[in-house]
Amino acid sequence: MELETLIRAAQEQELPELVLKNGRIVNVFTGEILQGDVAITAGMIVGVGEDYHGRKEIDLENRYVAPGFINSHVHVESSMVTPEVYSMEELRQGTTTIITDPHEIANVGGEAALKDILRAAEASPVNYYVMLPSCVPATPFEHTGAELSAEKLLPFRDEPLVPGLGEMMNTVGVLGLDASVMEKLRGFYDRIIDGHAPMLSGKSLQAYICGGIDTDHESISYEEAVEKLRCGLHVLVREGSASRNLTAIIKGVVKNKIDTSRMAFCTDDKHLADIRKKGSIRHAVKKAITLGLPPVRAIQMATINAAMIYGLQHIGAVACRYRADLVILDDLDAVTIHEVYKDGVPVSSIRQPERIQYNEALLHTVNPAPLPADAFVIPEKESYSVIGIVREQIITEHLHMTHQEVMDGLKNGTVRKIAVIERHHAAGFHACAYAANYGLHHGAVATTVAHDSHNIIVIGDNDADMFKAVEELKAIQGGYTIIADGKVVGSLPLQLGGLMSLLSADAFIPQLDDIIQKAYDAGVDPDIDPFITLSFTALPVIPHLRITDCGLFDADTFRFIP
Amino acid sequence: MELETLIRAAQEQELPELVLKNGRIVNVFTGEILQGDVAITAGMIVGVGEDYHGRKEIDLENRYVAPGFINSHVHVESSMVTPEVYSMEELRQGTTTIITDPHEIANVGGEAALKDILRAAEASPVNYYVMLPSCVPATPFEHTGAELSAEKLLPFRDEPLVPGLGEMMNTVGVLGLDASVMEKLRGFYDRIIDGHAPMLSGKSLQAYICGGIDTDHESISYEEAVEKLRCGLHVLVREGSASRNLTAIIKGVVKNKIDTSRMAFCTDDKHLADIRKKGSIRHAVKKAITLGLPPVRAIQMATINAAMIYGLQHIGAVACRYRADLVILDDLDAVTIHEVYKDGVPVSSIRQPERIQYNEALLHTVNPAPLPADAFVIPEKESYSVIGIVREQIITEHLHMTHQEVMDGLKNGTVRKIAVIERHHAAGFHACAYAANYGLHHGAVATTVAHDSHNIIVIGDNDADMFKAVEELKAIQGGYTIIADGKVVGSLPLQLGGLMSLLSADAFIPQLDDIIQKAYDAGVDPDIDPFITLSFTALPVIPHLRITDCGLFDADTFRFIP
Repeated sequence: MELETLIRAAQEQELPELVLKNGRIVNVFTGEILQGDVAITAGMIVGVGEDYHGRKEIDLENRYVAPGFINSHVHVESSMVTPEVYSMEELRQGTTTIITDPHEIANVGGEAALKDILRAAEASPVNYYVMLPSCVPATPFEHTGAELSAEKLLPFRDEPLVPGLGEMMNTVGVLGLDASVMEKLRGFYDRIIDGHAPMLSGKSLQAYICGGIDTDHESISYEEAVEKLRCGLHVLVREGSASRNLTAIIKGVVKNKIDTSRMAFCTDDKHLADIRKKGSIRHAVKKAITLGLPPVRAIQMATINAAMIYGLQHIGAVACRYRADLVILDDLDAVTIHEVYKDGVPVSSIRQPERIQYNEALLHTVNPAPLPADAFVIPEKESYSVIGIVREQIITEHLHMTHQEVMDGLKNGTVRKIAVIERHHAAGFHACAYAANYGLHHGAVATTVAHDSHNIIVIGDNDADMFKAVEELKAIQGGYTIIADGKVVGSLPLQLGGLMSLLSADAFIPQLDDIIQKAYDAGVDPDIDPFITLSFTALPVIPHLRITDCGLFDADTFRFIP
Repeated sequence: MELETLIRAAQEQELPELVLKNGRIVNVFTGEILQGDVAITAGMIVGVGEDYHGRKEIDLENRYVAPGFINSHVHVESSMVTPEVYSMEELRQGTTTIITDPHEIANVGGEAALKDILRAAEASPVNYYVMLPSCVPATPFEHTGAELSAEKLLPFRDEPLVPGLGEMMNTVGVLGLDASVMEKLRGFYDRIIDGHAPMLSGKSLQAYICGGIDTDHESISYEEAVEKLRCGLHVLVREGSASRNLTAIIKGVVKNKIDTSRMAFCTDDKHLADIRKKGSIRHAVKKAITLGLPPVRAIQMATINAAMIYGLQHIGAVACRYRADLVILDDLDAVTIHEVYKDGVPVSSIRQPERIQYNEALLHTVNPAPLPADAFVIPEKESYSVIGIVREQIITEHLHMTHQEVMDGLKNGTVRKIAVIERHHAAGFHACAYAANYGLHHGAVATTVAHDSHNIIVIGDNDADMFKAVEELKAIQGGYTIIADGKVVGSLPLQLGGLMSLLSADAFIPQLDDIIQKAYDAGVDPDIDPFITLSFTALPVIPHLRITDCGLFDADTFRFIP
């Protein structure tokens, strides 16, 4: 893009390539809505106002023109499709910029995965920014596919699509001055550093911020959000598939008339089907408006605010010198999308980009060591710590059950065996315990999506099907599987890192629906997401009882249970 | 400053060095005023809130705490003292950060001057940022001391105190795609580029912005300001000694309830005595509040907004991780300063920094070629174009006078000779013409401050005193002088580049007052600033008639008058 081209087109010395006529244009700078045309050349807006003429002209018939939306924090892996496919889904729903943290795939593939993601980002039809994962591995209590030290991250620091360092989940490490954490914070001190500080408050919160933290997306209440704002954090209001914090926060914002100029919207984790149904940021904007936030302020949060927070230039406004990333709306309050433009091109003309050539190693990441015959044998004890699965939650209960209670549970179907098996480097680590209240009449359910280290998690009522499940996941090189009586009931391959499907969205969504249905058919409790709930049972930083490839883990005391 | 030190102090694992107790703290993030303490260590705020304890504690007795003010655009040379001296004056009035454009000294000394200014910036007691002068020389119609091409500017681009490129005054060059202008714009496209677009509007304004312009400080009306805001420019509201635009703009802002989050305050040019009397940004904040802007919003404009516009980190808020640059106010509406802290140190404890060792060449910049005996002889003509000096303005009139009228004017004191003499490289250029309505009974007045090329300007009623004035300015190596009957009536040396005094503020201000009084005593019209008005008569970009070392110049047609 040549400056000269834009300056000439702005003066109509050469006619702009495209003029969108007669719009009601949301001005995110002044908070006004102004009648006018939008002139576009070389993918950039070169003029906004009255009486523009272009080589091509489209009459907007008084529709609203908003800047393309920005999803300020998202883990694309949660969609279980590749970045290329995910981008298109977001784009169709008006999101033209996403700020991602490839934390999951980095845990599997390390630097090689980062390189691939950056190539995918470049090839993406949206503006695809990549925050460098700060916590790989997330904890020292498990074995992961890779480790990203400061030394390994710093070479990516000045990549053009990298605004900074991804969410620093290790709050304990920051407050405790952990040397490797400090090294990362120092290395990115003058860049954006995303925070992750659920419930952190007062002096601890401010000490954490002193480490160089700029944002937080973990607030679940208005009070939590406003304290973080006051301390200088930019608050990313999260409305994802699992965590939905928008209502609580925006209600308080509206009631207390708090300044929103340092707030944005994000999804964190959102499923593809949910995006397809309602959109991601579009949905957040609409919901915020419903709660009483003036539409223009909701749009500011969804656009220019996010761009300012992350220092993204030429993004987030309908104004000259900004990218022609636009959402044309039929209705402002309902955020009904008429058309989306990316760099001046209507989304209907944008084809799904070809999948990039991923590093071959990333397609072969399921390498568990051969399991011994007693891998799922749990030594008999008087009583056991049992993982209690909780409906509609990712927290678990720490149950204490007698031997008899467990035996009864195994019989009546309330107790199952659960195991985690290291799967990255055939390192041979594995652990097995009891889990309650998952459901499942018979057989085994297993996944290679297992936050955050993504080992294999398998749950079942008999060892043979559990072995078979591990075998199947190795055979398909990652994904979901359901086994019964030694047979594969269903499998969903997620071959990219064992996390993402190589399918298109259209092919993937029915397959996902299908295997979820099969899990429910196999008896999984209908109030539990059969695979997502399972994949969080290995996350040692969420209360209360967890299992990693190193053993049963008390997430309250941060100790393994012998 | 070690991250570890801050994090420990924030948790009071080591007591903060200083705690300011019981303040009413302006929170620029949320727009609230909150009761609390401010804890400070290593010059940084490590905590804000209740119940902090420090090694030293000061009771604020419920006074207001605001962030230190930011002057978002200033030419320090206009103060006629060195950056070190200027900084202290600003600091005492609550300005802890200045964003400067050393355009004047760069016109004299080029890269060497830039290097010195950057060293002075580092030594300054305020946060002293330097925008690189984009227009040296300002026009091709005169001879200047130096030329700064893109090639010469780019090595300074990544200096830590350089946010970007200084005001691009060459709007014609931007719109006309001048190659050397384009090269500069391209070189700084991803950095901040200050604009200078008086009265530019509509498609021309947007074409100019397409060149990469981020700010403008030239708006003189609300309508002009709001159009620029709508186009995405950050508007710096100017309240200086000469140009005072705040009332017009802020009145409109208040009336129209326009969003101020992309606006800041600046002085552009402000005299030392004015700063000493009322402050710079402090004065702007106070005036804006008087006009009805809520105090917190005025303070946001004076602090965090400016920091965001220029991408300055850790500046502009009273919050952890920000520099402890604070203004303690007795009264919020009147902006009455009780104390100023810079990096946690009260200004009363900060000593005027030693003057840096300026490049010797910058102290010897007045090198006119020997003048021929007829240098001030104006060939007799039937009629003349005469520069009409206008009271209280820097614009001039283009008068047409007959020979007889000029002769009469010379006799009755309404007409004088005015000359500009190249003084940088003994290049030998000089021009002489007639000027009307300056006053001056007898003798000559001269200055080496002559925007923007800073040649010598001399005005007088006889050639001998004019020669003597040039001789005197060479002898003192720059400054102001008044001559009568071959004798020096008064001289004010401005030895740094012929623009700035090497004196302290206390020594300088009375000397300046003295020579201005002497000029009035010599008969200069009391409604004209004897030296400042004179120094603008050589600026070819201001209407209507000007004189440069190349000749009499019609600033309306951009042509020399033969």
